[in-house]
Amino acid sequence: MKVKIVRDLQDVSIKRSVDQGTEEQRKAVQSIIRSVRDEGDRALVAYTEKFDRVHLNHLKVTEAEIIEAFESVEPEVITIIEEAAENIRLFHEKQKQSSWFTTHENGTMLGQKLTPLDSVGVYVPGGTAAYPSSVLMNVLPAKVAGVERIAMVSPPNKEGKLPAGVLVAAKIAGVKEIYKVGGAQAIAALAYGTEMISPVDKITGPGNIFVALAKREVFGDVAIDMIAGPSEIVVLADENGEAKEIAADLLSQAEHDRQASAVLVTTSLALAERISQEVESQLATLPREEIARESIASYGAIYVAETLEQGIDVVNELAPEHLEIVTEKPLEVMAKIRHAGAIFLGRYSSEPVGDYFAGPNHVLPTNGTARFSSPLNVDDFMKKSSVISYSETALKDNYKKIAALARLEGLEAHARAVETRFHKK
Amino acid sequence: MKVKIVRDLQDVSIKRSVDQGTEEQRKAVQSIIRSVRDEGDRALVAYTEKFDRVHLNHLKVTEAEIIEAFESVEPEVITIIEEAAENIRLFHEKQKQSSWFTTHENGTMLGQKLTPLDSVGVYVPGGTAAYPSSVLMNVLPAKVAGVERIAMVSPPNKEGKLPAGVLVAAKIAGVKEIYKVGGAQAIAALAYGTEMISPVDKITGPGNIFVALAKREVFGDVAIDMIAGPSEIVVLADENGEAKEIAADLLSQAEHDRQASAVLVTTSLALAERISQEVESQLATLPREEIARESIASYGAIYVAETLEQGIDVVNELAPEHLEIVTEKPLEVMAKIRHAGAIFLGRYSSEPVGDYFAGPNHVLPTNGTARFSSPLNVDDFMKKSSVISYSETALKDNYKKIAALARLEGLEAHARAVETRFHKK
Repeated sequence: MKVKIVRDLQDVSIKRSVDQGTEEQRKAVQSIIRSVRDEGDRALVAYTEKFDRVHLNHLKVTEAEIIEAFESVEPEVITIIEEAAENIRLFHEKQKQSSWFTTHENGTMLGQKLTPLDSVGVYVPGGTAAYPSSVLMNVLPAKVAGVERIAMVSPPNKEGKLPAGVLVAAKIAGVKEIYKVGGAQAIAALAYGTEMISPVDKITGPGNIFVALAKREVFGDVAIDMIAGPSEIVVLADENGEAKEIAADLLSQAEHDRQASAVLVTTSLALAERISQEVESQLATLPREEIARESIASYGAIYVAETLEQGIDVVNELAPEHLEIVTEKPLEVMAKIRHAGAIFLGRYSSEPVGDYFAGPNHVLPTNGTARFSSPLNVDDFMKKSSVISYSETALKDNYKKIAALARLEGLEAHARAVETRFHKK
Repeated sequence: MKVKIVRDLQDVSIKRSVDQGTEEQRKAVQSIIRSVRDEGDRALVAYTEKFDRVHLNHLKVTEAEIIEAFESVEPEVITIIEEAAENIRLFHEKQKQSSWFTTHENGTMLGQKLTPLDSVGVYVPGGTAAYPSSVLMNVLPAKVAGVERIAMVSPPNKEGKLPAGVLVAAKIAGVKEIYKVGGAQAIAALAYGTEMISPVDKITGPGNIFVALAKREVFGDVAIDMIAGPSEIVVLADENGEAKEIAADLLSQAEHDRQASAVLVTTSLALAERISQEVESQLATLPREEIARESIASYGAIYVAETLEQGIDVVNELAPEHLEIVTEKPLEVMAKIRHAGAIFLGRYSSEPVGDYFAGPNHVLPTNGTARFSSPLNVDDFMKKSSVISYSETALKDNYKKIAALARLEGLEAHARAVETRFHKK
């Protein structure tokens, strides 16, 4: 199967409908949340038995389980995870904002105080989607922000265990609290607390439809991260692109998910045809061929642009999660990109470099939301407080103006509050 | 009516139930949004006639209307609005983050690119809640961020006009596109566009329940700001507090809204009693007495703390929108505050100073959400893109590690994508 080559932007869209869940699923999630709020740990144990088919009285992962996990992963892989964690930590440290203040000669001090969140819950999906890299990407920005307490939750397998890779990554990232519980029940426990699990201020991490619906339900009582859609890549290439490499990069997105989207935007029809051919031949040898094939058939496309400028416009229109720029002068093109989650420059910046290793976060805005959203970052785990300190002189100089504005808005008590400092009665 | 004095934290809560709307209201909002999407301007004109009782064929505010507004506001008030706008602009300019990058000797470049949103819609409520200060506080952070297009919407009165103060503030803030349309229909127009109004990327600003429900409906297709709850203040005072001043500050919150909350936390029972008395006597002379009285009765409280430390714990528990610290050493207390939207230090930092004039934003997290949310700020109008540039050397040094991590997660196409750069076949 080749990738379809199109010339009309109408035929390229990375927007896919997001699963909103059925009424039945929503009701089920609401009922689970209610039970966990009412019955605490007893409900967690019961739902784990029901959904994960394992009876666990103790949900907290023990030190012995961590040691066992380290023994079952190859030492060289552990070293690579440590190196990746270090890269991620270093990148995110650059994001950290500081508190600041300004002063004025009249004695005014204004400022912005940054404080990490007290506690964060990280959801890690179970089964085949259990990704050690996802543990690092969700936990490390919170750690760098200075969050004191990080509670991780993940559904156990039928033996009552979590994947060794996930436990190793959690330990390396510095997580000290891990619970073997998943689904809506885990989200409810993080939001409202049980005897065993204290509540958190914010919940991050991907999950299935029940997890997504539960996050929506608890939103407001706690903060949540974005609800991520399927993954997507856009490669922008001129005639210098290597067909084999670009095809491989497109397929690395396509293998994620039947709903994943891989799009090439190119100024070269010859390259378009070579890549289409390459995708076809590489597809046949992939272990996840069936998934990748369906993704390419449904959401894959090659758009042939008249000019590079027009190609850039198309990219900005699509606002992709991942963008590879494989052109002669990628930096110059990058300057014109307004909307993209992560931008990969040049031939050697293959997208998986960012998924695992380089340092920037792989939790990125999908489905066109890069128009207004950012990668998961340290700011997501801190909050700001404004600070206002007026001296007597400063207020004396300005209180009449403040009172005038208050009265313009019909708020007399506001006016009197500042006046009462100076009007002696 | 005195403020109730309590010693049990159970009796103090600033958490109030947020109006989620009725099923009927939700249905009405969905139907309005559908009509605007289907019929565009025709629906806007019809809903304006129905809800605002005025027939307007042209919704865009004209230059003549702006001139008329400036003529009807006193010149000295215009000057004060300009000064407030300048203070707000200066404070928010300090918030603006820059793009940055790091390099490594192996040729790696990693970075974070900041880009303003392309377009923002600002909702300004009508009627008595039409606040010029709210225009400045919503528009100026977007302006400072560099947002090119700001579209303001606000419901017209029966004469088809917007309040002069709002138009003056909008002009001073640099808004060039103002539409006389409100309610869910205005939100729908901003989210999806009509012939007259182009769609925006993010919608901010407060509104009634229909506006709030409409924002929830369009959320995801566009970004929205937080859905604000009623306003609240906590004053933390030791025996040095001036009863008259603190009572006036409590009442300045209480006059906002029947659901507003004003709480005093103090180490001094004597002060508690004086302030309770003062609130009673000041209440009687307020134009908005009835509203303030109901707020104080339902959501007002004075908590007497054993020690200042315990008082600080109570404040962190409440996580108030506004916090005044009126103690001997307010800076030292501030260092221990973990959760508050805006912090006012000392006797001369009366809360209305922040509402109108000082510079920090008055759009603040309410209802305890200061645990995890921030004041409206410049970051809300920008987004980040990660940038990854690996040299041939950098990828050569690392591609085997990246492939190992990909295979640990069962993602073979990811591994091959990096390998294909070096494995010649």
